Amino acid sequence: MTHVVIPLYERFTALDVIGVYQPLALTPGIDVLLVAERPGPVGDDCGAVSLVAESAFDDVVATDVLVVPGGPGTIQALAGPLPGWIRRIHETTTFTTSVCSGSILLGAAGLLRGRRATSHYRVARELSRFGAEPTGQRVVEELDARIITAAGVSSGIDMGLRLVELLTDRTTAQAVQLWMEYDPQPPFDSGHPARASQEVIARAAAYESAARVAR
Amino acid sequence: MTHVVIPLYERFTALDVIGVYQPLALTPGIDVLLVAERPGPVGDDCGAVSLVAESAFDDVVATDVLVVPGGPGTIQALAGPLPGWIRRIHETTTFTTSVCSGSILLGAAGLLRGRRATSHYRVARELSRFGAEPTGQRVVEELDARIITAAGVSSGIDMGLRLVELLTDRTTAQAVQLWMEYDPQPPFDSGHPARASQEVIARAAAYESAARVAR
Repeated sequence: MTHVVIPLYERFTALDVIGVYQPLALTPGIDVLLVAERPGPVGDDCGAVSLVAESAFDDVVATDVLVVPGGPGTIQALAGPLPGWIRRIHETTTFTTSVCSGSILLGAAGLLRGRRATSHYRVARELSRFGAEPTGQRVVEELDARIITAAGVSSGIDMGLRLVELLTDRTTAQAVQLWMEYDPQPPFDSGHPARASQEVIARAAAYESAARVAR
Repeated sequence: MTHVVIPLYERFTALDVIGVYQPLALTPGIDVLLVAERPGPVGDDCGAVSLVAESAFDDVVATDVLVVPGGPGTIQALAGPLPGWIRRIHETTTFTTSVCSGSILLGAAGLLRGRRATSHYRVARELSRFGAEPTGQRVVEELDARIITAAGVSSGIDMGLRLVELLTDRTTAQAVQLWMEYDPQPPFDSGHPARASQEVIARAAAYESAARVAR
């Protein structure tokens, strides 16, 4: 059995977690565990979803795969036990990974020095504070360091399928993609800042600021 | 404020819920509520995620948007209070929608008679039992009946962005797409049965059967 651990913290982004959880959890032989500082419900950044952590950080001392999600709560999580815990767990992993601003936590844990990495487009520049080289790629693999980072929110789905391939084989990952019917047909083409209008970019930034202040 | 209600039931599929939740919950002026037969945690089909329902079905008598997710638990949910509750709530909605096998529950509620609809590729044929015409489309809009159905699991993201456009405006929906960085780059192209190999289709079917028996 391959063990995957996903740490939660207050004001995580729900799709950061579930986008990568879903392909991994569907795969036979992969077991996923949600953890948090304390077991119990942890609330997301939008205020309507609580995911239940089954175990505390302190109960987990090793895992095959660590997936650190992002969200506005990353800023508070930086000051808590999470970076130190990530650094310790990373010693035991086959792959240490992040989605969205989760890579900031990997950086704070000291895992990205001299490494290429990605994050949500609004915070990717911050990675350089931790000695990392930010890239605009959707999924960045630094396999000799056992580290994979994914860009904002929905990019965890793409990274999750790639992780399934790395942990099993391509046919299995393709079967999981089919079961999830991951045949995306976005109704618009504004999912990357390079292809969004200035109006769209400004509106997204305003929402983000409102969310950070309000919650 | 536009109100969105998402009913949960045991053995729902997590990405069915969160894929459509995320774009809606990020949109200013849209409020999302998770409900279940009783308030409290409800477990998903893969066994590692519990989402917390804030209210009971009986506490909700109206909403602007209803989103019914799918999952292997749909079969048991057909025999419970959900179809009757959906039928009553539908009287009050602007849009009644489903992801994946959630459309089977809309069918059981009597909402799909004479209508085109979609579902997970493995169960779409079942829609004809309820007088619906199954299509292989990813998102099917029957706007004169106020009904939108989406195909399997991840298709809820595409439907969710379209719902944001219908409830607000295109620029808002594009800004949400950008914030989510929904710029999909699947590592393989097997997300639809028409493009998956026979080996991949067979493997996906085997996993599904195993999951249904084991859980």
